[in-house]
Amino acid sequence: MRYPSADALGARCGVVREAIRQENLDALVLSHLPNVQYLTGFGGSSAVLVVTPDRLLFVTDGRYATEVEQSVRPNCPGLALVPVDPSYDETLARILDGFPGGRIGIEAGHMTVGRFTWLKERLPVDSGACQLVPVDRMVEAARLVKDDFEQAVFREAAAMLDDVVHDVFAVVREGQRELELAGEIDYRIKRRGFARPSFETIVASGPNAALPHARPGERALHAGDLVVLDFGGVLSGYCVDLTRTVSIGPPSDETGRLYAAVKEAQRASIDRVRPGVLASDVDDAARRVLETRGFGAMFSHGTGHGLGLEIHEEPRVGPIRAGTGVQQMTRDERLATGMVMTVEPGAYVPGVGGVRIEDDVLVTEGGCVVLTQAPRELFVVRR
Amino acid sequence: MRYPSADALGARCGVVREAIRQENLDALVLSHLPNVQYLTGFGGSSAVLVVTPDRLLFVTDGRYATEVEQSVRPNCPGLALVPVDPSYDETLARILDGFPGGRIGIEAGHMTVGRFTWLKERLPVDSGACQLVPVDRMVEAARLVKDDFEQAVFREAAAMLDDVVHDVFAVVREGQRELELAGEIDYRIKRRGFARPSFETIVASGPNAALPHARPGERALHAGDLVVLDFGGVLSGYCVDLTRTVSIGPPSDETGRLYAAVKEAQRASIDRVRPGVLASDVDDAARRVLETRGFGAMFSHGTGHGLGLEIHEEPRVGPIRAGTGVQQMTRDERLATGMVMTVEPGAYVPGVGGVRIEDDVLVTEGGCVVLTQAPRELFVVRR
Repeated sequence: MRYPSADALGARCGVVREAIRQENLDALVLSHLPNVQYLTGFGGSSAVLVVTPDRLLFVTDGRYATEVEQSVRPNCPGLALVPVDPSYDETLARILDGFPGGRIGIEAGHMTVGRFTWLKERLPVDSGACQLVPVDRMVEAARLVKDDFEQAVFREAAAMLDDVVHDVFAVVREGQRELELAGEIDYRIKRRGFARPSFETIVASGPNAALPHARPGERALHAGDLVVLDFGGVLSGYCVDLTRTVSIGPPSDETGRLYAAVKEAQRASIDRVRPGVLASDVDDAARRVLETRGFGAMFSHGTGHGLGLEIHEEPRVGPIRAGTGVQQMTRDERLATGMVMTVEPGAYVPGVGGVRIEDDVLVTEGGCVVLTQAPRELFVVRR
Repeated sequence: MRYPSADALGARCGVVREAIRQENLDALVLSHLPNVQYLTGFGGSSAVLVVTPDRLLFVTDGRYATEVEQSVRPNCPGLALVPVDPSYDETLARILDGFPGGRIGIEAGHMTVGRFTWLKERLPVDSGACQLVPVDRMVEAARLVKDDFEQAVFREAAAMLDDVVHDVFAVVREGQRELELAGEIDYRIKRRGFARPSFETIVASGPNAALPHARPGERALHAGDLVVLDFGGVLSGYCVDLTRTVSIGPPSDETGRLYAAVKEAQRASIDRVRPGVLASDVDDAARRVLETRGFGAMFSHGTGHGLGLEIHEEPRVGPIRAGTGVQQMTRDERLATGMVMTVEPGAYVPGVGGVRIEDDVLVTEGGCVVLTQAPRELFVVRR
């Protein structure tokens, strides 16, 4: 586990504080843990951070007090630990008592209606307490573009994930149960040095491969199956994510055509990635290839998603045009240098099988770098 | 993966519908996935469920359409699949257009301020749309007491976890790095038949054992260390959770005393578990033992938590009295037959080490059954 330097954290806080100033806020309350981690390095499971123009008030409970003192505070100038007493909500309210008449931002996309209602009742504006202002994406907007520390972690993590792919290709074989192979994959993810898988590993064989988010089960891999393997790891807090589809024995003409179409679709999307392009255009590139090849209706999800401290984050890479039959994005993003995202088109034939190919790309000034480099040719498992 | 029967799901929906009737609601919107899974069996990562007196309107996107048709709908009479078009929020709003003037419950503890605000603007009450009513714990209250299906899953999962403990005791040895041992544990969790670990496995050795939620790192296990091993698995959606603390070589007098105190504290709490007792009383039993032994200030967390489709759920087992220095519970629960929870006191000496012992118990008419039965004597790793 590497932690960002005090300089890196200071720069991130600077960006968020500028946003706080532009919104005329006196402080911003963060309870979404990836946002807390982004500004402090804290990797625990429970904390609230109040960002003011000159301080970071860090609320956590007894389980994490030692960790904050030892690993977080040294990199965070201006951080003060506020132990929970007697509850998170009460402790937060007591901090906000210190801002009478102030404007305090809360995360509209994360704070629950219940907590918001409780806080508003505990802090009555009529009696001179602060005003709670729902705001959006104050930290997420900063997280979109990865800094040098983050890009270095991504490059290392992607190379490690490539190694895992080679390990996995060496172990997959006919007759294995999906769950058994998933266990082998997870073991190799950790053995290679990841803290953990970045999501629940998918091993979907034969007809199960037609379910884009199948969970591995008792089915054994059979000759003629396409098998979708979708997995990733977490390194120093950051998630990488990759999919390869393998064939148990030689593919049929039909599965071969399906694979070739998805591979071409992925290539088309990757070729479209560069600063200034809309995320929906990247999606469109893959979708048009699959439509041309007759598989358009079988591409039932978006083309990709941003990666970072969360496995799914901005930018979302999906359709914005009507008639695609897939969940449309509510927000389209113009790509910029330093964004990291997956490109993962797929095609799924109910009852028969499916193909997905996924890699992670970093947007660069000249276009993009494909971070994951494991072979994209159809891997045929020898029987 | 076993799915609850149509009868079991029907009974659960019946309980929730009775709560809907008592709150004078026309429908209840659920987006917290464990609540959706509880009523339908759906185990995917994205869905919204609208529960009406006679229907279950199930909103999901293209990735899960096939799974819902094949695995969910057959067990859910009255379920109608509503494909996302073009977004979850829009699709939900269109469903709610069908309840003009109605009272629609939303999950105050889960719906975000952002979604709530958007829905209220899209459904103006002045123009005759429905009224959104924040409600609490409509499904969580039903989930507190486990039904026969759930209890059977817990008994099986606990026995499986005991097997993993034996496997782990056979593999732990001096010189192993924490991350390496965590990988071995996770591998054995999956190999034994769990879908995945139920949370990130903790291996905390020597001074790291003083951090109750340490993440495993590069430190190697040394002679004289206490090592806290905290792990669990997910079976058919349900989470089990266990901690054992082992000693690398014979314990010192000091670590031996620490272990004995925590073991006695756990025994005292387990002895207190029976229907009608307050959760805070169960916490109090362990806390008093540790206070008497001089370790009271080193018990920095609550004694336990409910288990179910989530790794941390109700009942919370923590202190309600002042002066314990630990996050106090905002809600005390009276235990009832069928509840399942952990009992896991600990004591942590900063810079030196720590001990935690955790088992899962099922509240029964006569008291409780300790589901996990792996040995609680201090396991000494031979050097």
